[in-house]
Amino acid sequence: MTTTPARTGSGTSSATIPAAGSPELADTIELLGLVAQLEHVAFARLAADSALAPTIEQRLELSRFASAAVERRDRVLARITEIGGDPVAAVRQYDDVLDDFDARTQPGSWWERLLKAYVGYGVADDFCRLAAEGLDEGSRAVVLEVLDDASHAELAVAELDAAGSADGVLTARLALWGRRLVGEALGVVQRLLVQRPALVRLVAIGSANQSTSPDAAPTNAPTKLFGELTAQHTRRMSRLGLTA
Amino acid sequence: MTTTPARTGSGTSSATIPAAGSPELADTIELLGLVAQLEHVAFARLAADSALAPTIEQRLELSRFASAAVERRDRVLARITEIGGDPVAAVRQYDDVLDDFDARTQPGSWWERLLKAYVGYGVADDFCRLAAEGLDEGSRAVVLEVLDDASHAELAVAELDAAGSADGVLTARLALWGRRLVGEALGVVQRLLVQRPALVRLVAIGSANQSTSPDAAPTNAPTKLFGELTAQHTRRMSRLGLTA
Repeated sequence: MTTTPARTGSGTSSATIPAAGSPELADTIELLGLVAQLEHVAFARLAADSALAPTIEQRLELSRFASAAVERRDRVLARITEIGGDPVAAVRQYDDVLDDFDARTQPGSWWERLLKAYVGYGVADDFCRLAAEGLDEGSRAVVLEVLDDASHAELAVAELDAAGSADGVLTARLALWGRRLVGEALGVVQRLLVQRPALVRLVAIGSANQSTSPDAAPTNAPTKLFGELTAQHTRRMSRLGLTA
Repeated sequence: MTTTPARTGSGTSSATIPAAGSPELADTIELLGLVAQLEHVAFARLAADSALAPTIEQRLELSRFASAAVERRDRVLARITEIGGDPVAAVRQYDDVLDDFDARTQPGSWWERLLKAYVGYGVADDFCRLAAEGLDEGSRAVVLEVLDDASHAELAVAELDAAGSADGVLTARLALWGRRLVGEALGVVQRLLVQRPALVRLVAIGSANQSTSPDAAPTNAPTKLFGELTAQHTRRMSRLGLTA
């Protein structure tokens, strides 16, 4: 949310709401739709986690996180309405965005479930954060604000850390699970980039806006993107004392 | 929430917070625990409904209702803390309160699911409302406020009404389903009254407070209770154009 000179001076559409009917507006609504859908999926998963959590304290806490995800999703939907989009249509296009991911990564235990949320949401949030760099100021602010609310990650870290440090076998198993999760999560991002040129454009604009050398080829954006997603994942796993 | 002279002048503990360690306080916490648990169950059910809803609009709406149930539950938990109780312990004792009911009333369609929530929550809410008449002023206000938020019922009514009026077979099937649901729901209340003397005491106090003839025998309270629960159910079904 800090405004760098490169960003405001770049001549892209990042400072104002894109004009009605413009391709930039359509791209913006597409990313906002993805973020809203991911928050909705987070709600559904956190609610299911709440039902399965081993203790009542966790059930209460996870239901609050689920409720917060609804609130975040609705902030994004409100932004879509504000810039003239149809929020339901924007969300609908991503209806099955994590279905494959979910089918391939069925957690076998409560810890695997927690790690899946932490790693899966982590990669998705990082991707949206990077793509949001290509948005107008107001939309970007909404996305970054929404993604900054990382309370669920904190719970996952606290619980996994407490469990893992006492159990070497669990740690080794979770490290392996983390590698499978990130592989599948990066696969989701890859498919999104193939299917959604809008997201590729936003990542490229964001990458150019952030670049220190203004004439860096935007075609490098995807490579840079996967580099950053992987680096963030490694950082995230090491917070848990797990090898990425 | 209106204060009748009978209530404040009745000499019961309804006007102030019951003293620490008193049986009245324990009874109060027991009812508040039940209300909080019912709201938590409502959250879990609404979240599951959201995942199963046929349209995206319904999914979004139901997730908002789920989120509102969390907020209502937390208001009740806050009241428990305020009067010196342990909210987690209060909720824990009702952990399986609706398990039997759920096992016996597996809905076979989206409409049966909606009606189950409408009828099931309806009876539970009415019971808590009546028992709340035996609480101190502040606790009663919290319970009645929480139970007054009937937005989910409105959705159920609107949807069931729209569907039912166009389909005579569905109407007949739902009327039958409603009768099974209310039978099971009243069974839950009956078991609660057998297992929870605290709730019987609160219903009796509430019934005496509300009675126009002050020397009416409090032993009539359960009979009166089931009469009122049945009357409310009939009213609710007729709002849907269904025979109770």
